[in-house]
Amino acid sequence: MDIAVIGSNMVDLISYINKMPREGETLEAPDFEIGCGGKGANQAVAAAKMGARVMMVTKVGDDLFADNTIANLEKYGIDTEFTNKVPGTSSGVAPIFVDPESKNRILIIKGANQFLTPEDVDRAAPKLKLCSLIVLQLEIPLETVYRAIEFGNENGIPVILNPAPASKELDFNYVCKCDFFVPNESELEILTGMPVETEEQIKAAAGTLIEKGVKDVIVTMGSRGVMWVTKGEVHIVDSHKVNAIDTTGAGDAFIGCFAHYFTQSQDVLHSIKMATAFAALSVTKRGTQSSYPTVEEVEHFIKAVV
Amino acid sequence: MDIAVIGSNMVDLISYINKMPREGETLEAPDFEIGCGGKGANQAVAAAKMGARVMMVTKVGDDLFADNTIANLEKYGIDTEFTNKVPGTSSGVAPIFVDPESKNRILIIKGANQFLTPEDVDRAAPKLKLCSLIVLQLEIPLETVYRAIEFGNENGIPVILNPAPASKELDFNYVCKCDFFVPNESELEILTGMPVETEEQIKAAAGTLIEKGVKDVIVTMGSRGVMWVTKGEVHIVDSHKVNAIDTTGAGDAFIGCFAHYFTQSQDVLHSIKMATAFAALSVTKRGTQSSYPTVEEVEHFIKAVV
Repeated sequence: MDIAVIGSNMVDLISYINKMPREGETLEAPDFEIGCGGKGANQAVAAAKMGARVMMVTKVGDDLFADNTIANLEKYGIDTEFTNKVPGTSSGVAPIFVDPESKNRILIIKGANQFLTPEDVDRAAPKLKLCSLIVLQLEIPLETVYRAIEFGNENGIPVILNPAPASKELDFNYVCKCDFFVPNESELEILTGMPVETEEQIKAAAGTLIEKGVKDVIVTMGSRGVMWVTKGEVHIVDSHKVNAIDTTGAGDAFIGCFAHYFTQSQDVLHSIKMATAFAALSVTKRGTQSSYPTVEEVEHFIKAVV
Repeated sequence: MDIAVIGSNMVDLISYINKMPREGETLEAPDFEIGCGGKGANQAVAAAKMGARVMMVTKVGDDLFADNTIANLEKYGIDTEFTNKVPGTSSGVAPIFVDPESKNRILIIKGANQFLTPEDVDRAAPKLKLCSLIVLQLEIPLETVYRAIEFGNENGIPVILNPAPASKELDFNYVCKCDFFVPNESELEILTGMPVETEEQIKAAAGTLIEKGVKDVIVTMGSRGVMWVTKGEVHIVDSHKVNAIDTTGAGDAFIGCFAHYFTQSQDVLHSIKMATAFAALSVTKRGTQSSYPTVEEVEHFIKAVV
């Protein structure tokens, strides 16, 4: 095993609508799609597509989505030994509404993801110990995230924490124990309470985290690229100019791809560059996991832009 | 076979929300449920629960909902020989949002239901000819509804048309060929363009349909009961006072139960009374098909109120 993702899975229920119904109204909509999503699963799939051996610790419901979610992970070669069903609970779902201008409204019902416990981390311990990186997000209970960070520390396994969706309750004592803290701008703003409009402001906000003890802060800034802040150093990796069709899941694409290249090379800057290319390619297609490129596409793209 | 329902099936995707997300917003919601719905399937289930031998001519997608929909129909003993999958299409779905005051917003994506064709009616002909009643609604293409009406006429099989959801394109030449036309008040208003606020107005609007050649018009009026208008006669069957929890599917409950009792007794008034009791019981529980009562519950309720 290379990477353990301890996190969420969701079923995206995407309605392509003309307009939202008002209260009491029934409206016909032209199209509907089911997709596999959830930040944890997206990141696991991104890493697996790059060739990483990935295991996923996650919970599904006992509904008709469960087997589909497990089959999807396995399709990408992800180990699902610790992907378990929760009786009497529905799977996590994300009803998404996309209007004709591609603007989104998203509902998140965490379902079974709420039942991923610290004990689930401990149960997976023998296999987790074989991993060289742990990847975390915040769509599962915070105490489970904290236990996973401790587990990484106890076993000398580096931990990436993607603080998404942003939670003000996130305990900074645990954030400081992570090796990589990877927010986007708005998550950084919410977590630090500092402005993030200019690069200087982002650097200052990330700097406060470094002062608190975080080793590496990697801020994904969309079309402005990626800022890597570590003790005494700041690097900015520019984004690639692409024709953006659908940015859903681009942040997860970055994290999963970064995780893979970091486990392979231990080279943070190289891993950020590869992940930036991967994320750029992912926004040129509709869909989330289905928009993630192959290794060949990423390598071809990198060659073309260098 | 007693009853053929030629119509729709839908998967209800019910999100229980605190509030709707605005454009660009992601909001967490407390609960989610999958239900089996669609006006056609609801009516088939209501009739089957009363003991009718029901066949259903309908189309599902080739997605993960399809087998679940078929299994649900079969659970109620409904014949699914002519419930077919449409390759490359998603099943009909109804994303429904219920707020804390039980107010609904509903999206309908017809999916595979749009592919139920007049040819599907003809393919099912040998089995349809064994039925003593055909039940229709408007969640499938109008030309398929028209073919089913013609088929009923050609084979001496009475036809119930429930004009829901209301369509202004509905051709009155076909409506006149039905034995029973069963709108609710707002459908009657949309179809006739006449006011339906008072009982007198409803009687007048229904009367225009009788003049045009419809044999029996049965208007479901919610808590005001049911008005049965036929040539020279008007009957009103009062509703039952119940503690309404969830009125979703109550109209379908009425139609399916009416269809069963009519095939058994040929007694319109008796059938309306039984269906009124059935529908009343259905609104006292949350859910659609899952809220439909058993024969025993209906008989017990009827005895208690008489």
